[in-house]
Amino acid sequence: MQDDLASLKARLREHNDLESAASLLRWDQATYMPSGGAGARGRQLATLERLAHDRIADPEIGQLLDKVDAALRRGDETPTTAALVRVARRDHERATRVPSAFVSEFANHRAETYELWTRARPENDFSRICPKLEKTVELSRTYASFFAPYEHVADPLIDDADPGMNASTVRALFAELRRELVPLVRAMTSVPPADDRCLFQTFAEEDQLAFGQMLAGRFGYDFVRGRQDKTHHPFMTKFSLGDVRITTRVRADDLSEALFSTLHEAGHAIYEQNIDVSFEASPLGQGASAGIHESQSRLWENLVGRSRPFWKAFYPSLQKLFPGQLGAVSLETFYRAINKVARSLIRTNADEVTYGLHVIMRFDFELDLLEGKLAVRDLPEAWRERFRADFGIVPETDSDGVLQDVHWYDGFVGGAFQGYALGNLMSAQFFEAAVMAHPDLPHEIESGRFDTLRGWLATNVHRHGRMYLPAELVEKATGKELGIAPYIAYLRTKYGELYPI
Amino acid sequence: MQDDLASLKARLREHNDLESAASLLRWDQATYMPSGGAGARGRQLATLERLAHDRIADPEIGQLLDKVDAALRRGDETPTTAALVRVARRDHERATRVPSAFVSEFANHRAETYELWTRARPENDFSRICPKLEKTVELSRTYASFFAPYEHVADPLIDDADPGMNASTVRALFAELRRELVPLVRAMTSVPPADDRCLFQTFAEEDQLAFGQMLAGRFGYDFVRGRQDKTHHPFMTKFSLGDVRITTRVRADDLSEALFSTLHEAGHAIYEQNIDVSFEASPLGQGASAGIHESQSRLWENLVGRSRPFWKAFYPSLQKLFPGQLGAVSLETFYRAINKVARSLIRTNADEVTYGLHVIMRFDFELDLLEGKLAVRDLPEAWRERFRADFGIVPETDSDGVLQDVHWYDGFVGGAFQGYALGNLMSAQFFEAAVMAHPDLPHEIESGRFDTLRGWLATNVHRHGRMYLPAELVEKATGKELGIAPYIAYLRTKYGELYPI
Repeated sequence: MQDDLASLKARLREHNDLESAASLLRWDQATYMPSGGAGARGRQLATLERLAHDRIADPEIGQLLDKVDAALRRGDETPTTAALVRVARRDHERATRVPSAFVSEFANHRAETYELWTRARPENDFSRICPKLEKTVELSRTYASFFAPYEHVADPLIDDADPGMNASTVRALFAELRRELVPLVRAMTSVPPADDRCLFQTFAEEDQLAFGQMLAGRFGYDFVRGRQDKTHHPFMTKFSLGDVRITTRVRADDLSEALFSTLHEAGHAIYEQNIDVSFEASPLGQGASAGIHESQSRLWENLVGRSRPFWKAFYPSLQKLFPGQLGAVSLETFYRAINKVARSLIRTNADEVTYGLHVIMRFDFELDLLEGKLAVRDLPEAWRERFRADFGIVPETDSDGVLQDVHWYDGFVGGAFQGYALGNLMSAQFFEAAVMAHPDLPHEIESGRFDTLRGWLATNVHRHGRMYLPAELVEKATGKELGIAPYIAYLRTKYGELYPI
Repeated sequence: MQDDLASLKARLREHNDLESAASLLRWDQATYMPSGGAGARGRQLATLERLAHDRIADPEIGQLLDKVDAALRRGDETPTTAALVRVARRDHERATRVPSAFVSEFANHRAETYELWTRARPENDFSRICPKLEKTVELSRTYASFFAPYEHVADPLIDDADPGMNASTVRALFAELRRELVPLVRAMTSVPPADDRCLFQTFAEEDQLAFGQMLAGRFGYDFVRGRQDKTHHPFMTKFSLGDVRITTRVRADDLSEALFSTLHEAGHAIYEQNIDVSFEASPLGQGASAGIHESQSRLWENLVGRSRPFWKAFYPSLQKLFPGQLGAVSLETFYRAINKVARSLIRTNADEVTYGLHVIMRFDFELDLLEGKLAVRDLPEAWRERFRADFGIVPETDSDGVLQDVHWYDGFVGGAFQGYALGNLMSAQFFEAAVMAHPDLPHEIESGRFDTLRGWLATNVHRHGRMYLPAELVEKATGKELGIAPYIAYLRTKYGELYPI
């Protein structure tokens, strides 16, 4: 058993090393790569992805899993080993269903589509990318077909990102959520919006970066095991437990851009940095799902980073850093500015309240596209219609509409978006449970300390990596099934104070 | 044939992709990686190196090579395909001789040794790293043994770096070279050294970097397909023809550090950027050898970058950039400062004339260590003795002696150094041939133009990649066998004007 387990772990580590190398190639592509490197980089990534796939799909991993499993059943079991075998088997079996040739074909298609999107988006040219996106939908269906039978064609794609979830469970949650959000948004947008002009002055980029890094460090992001670089579309990436990096973008004329993307990505990174060290380079050593991951980024960005206690602690330093710009702006004005609720076109810039509607809309489109109910060429018009219905406004260009998010142009259609809204729900549920366990938490935050919160998250969420399914993890950590109640309660309490709801 | 050739190329490309990924991991390690990432990075690199080795050693590559070879003999031959098969077969056959387990063992040993060296060097603690270096010598012998029979145990290691060379040919060249250098150095160091204090003032780092990049761009280094970053030990690395990067280090108190390392690395990069595009991602698409590569870096650094015509063109801009520091320093004083000849302890800081002696000494030690004539524990003392004999001075610490160069602590003992001195010889021979073909070349340089020189190098050296063995390439480009005469003539002419020789 020990020999088999060691061999199994060595093979899983090798798979992990290839994945980590691919992540570094992607990080470099998004930060420092000269433009001349684009073509070869796409090919190199496709090679690494195919090799990684072949590694985890290797029948010898299946045999080792069987042997270790048998030994476990004879009683050598430890919970960690059992979880390792369970998660590795899931990864292995899913990989064996997908032919290596498909992995290559999709990797190449994805690289070409992404490359085209980077030009189609600024040029507002959906027609140019339409054939590629049609192909993506077709390949997404093919991918799903490898996992037949299923209830809904999106199920395998959703399950990839958020294990244990499917179209039906997500649809039910989202229906409830939408029922609550639509009237909330309507009420909040019926009054004049908050004045957020204080955020749109001129702020030196270096100072913005330094302030964000100071906050990330206070949250507990360990810069000895990480760093921050600039990019176009902020993300977090991990090459090992000792090297978890974040990226951001800075705009001199918009203070909120770098600030909140830094807090957001730091939330992702703190999660990865606190996973049990014994899971390192194994399938257990990652975040549990897209939704759980997003719960951590949104928790630090919003429940902490847009809260009154937080800014009671840090607004004075921000004023000291930008005395000309903020010296005469009160904490209350600043607080209302960073929590302005408004109907807006761009998901990533949306406030906490309208955000969910952006996500639910995309989720619905994914199901419609995969079901064939909606043709790709009709997507821009469908987007405008739905936007009018949900938000009462219509994007003037596809750049601000269907072309805005990278996801469908750099991956499958299906499973790409639900994690964002699930994450919001979970963030409130986790935070509620943390405050229940430590009622003094808001006061700690008010004094600029985060140890108790981070400790609670590390103990109840982070360290477990992929030990538990997302739904199990939520229930284990909060004592309750995943639901919309904590999130809606959070919104009502916070915004009830600011808006007539 | 076409199918087999396409399959062969696809497999070679895959090997190249893994090597390129490994290069990016190394670049990142040397530039941006947080210290926490070191452990996992070593393991990831070992995995990629082993997979790359297994890929090129794959018996199916051997079979494809046989098939393509047979087709070529039936007359489908093109010179490029014939060269591709020849070079790929060399790589394949060399790889098949080395067991995969050895590749892993050495990669791990190398990572540990390097890690230890980064601490042993500043602490001047040779005894700490001695057991590791003993193991390196043993593993180097084992590696050589895979290629038995050979004339000298160092031959396989020399042949890796400089194909077609061996201990006997290199020894013969070096004996001649040393015979010329020792009296030259004696004569030049018998008079008071040039005054180089103008280089050791305070120079803003950003300005230094900008000036070096301007020069590199003028040489013809294409920044759309490259970039420069800071590191501890400057190097050039290539991820694809479209992404060839250089690194440098900057010292505010030493103008020559960043300046000449930038010109040097730009020389390496220009070589790689000008290899025939059809060789991309194949075994032909790299520099021909360590020596040829070094000839390009040294040519731009020294024959151009430390020449009078060059500084006639650019010294005024340098004075304009640093008016307080250099405004009152004449071109002649500056020229003599950057060409000061002196007995010094550190190879990488040595002037052009003494440089060869540093290299020959290391080459001789490599042979002695591999032959078992010299024990690793006796190396520091042997170093001091040889230094006294060759330079008339003795390093006070091992940090300035046997611990100074990374090579033996990050690779094999054997084959690591001869390329540096071969490169100097070749640089002069290439430059002489270029001037013979274009007698106006020095005047072009004097007016800050390098197109003719770069064009000659691209046509006669760069574009060929690994098409020819180094000795063939030198002969093809210069019409003469590789020899010491052009180099010695260059030194005598240049330094005859400055010193009583």
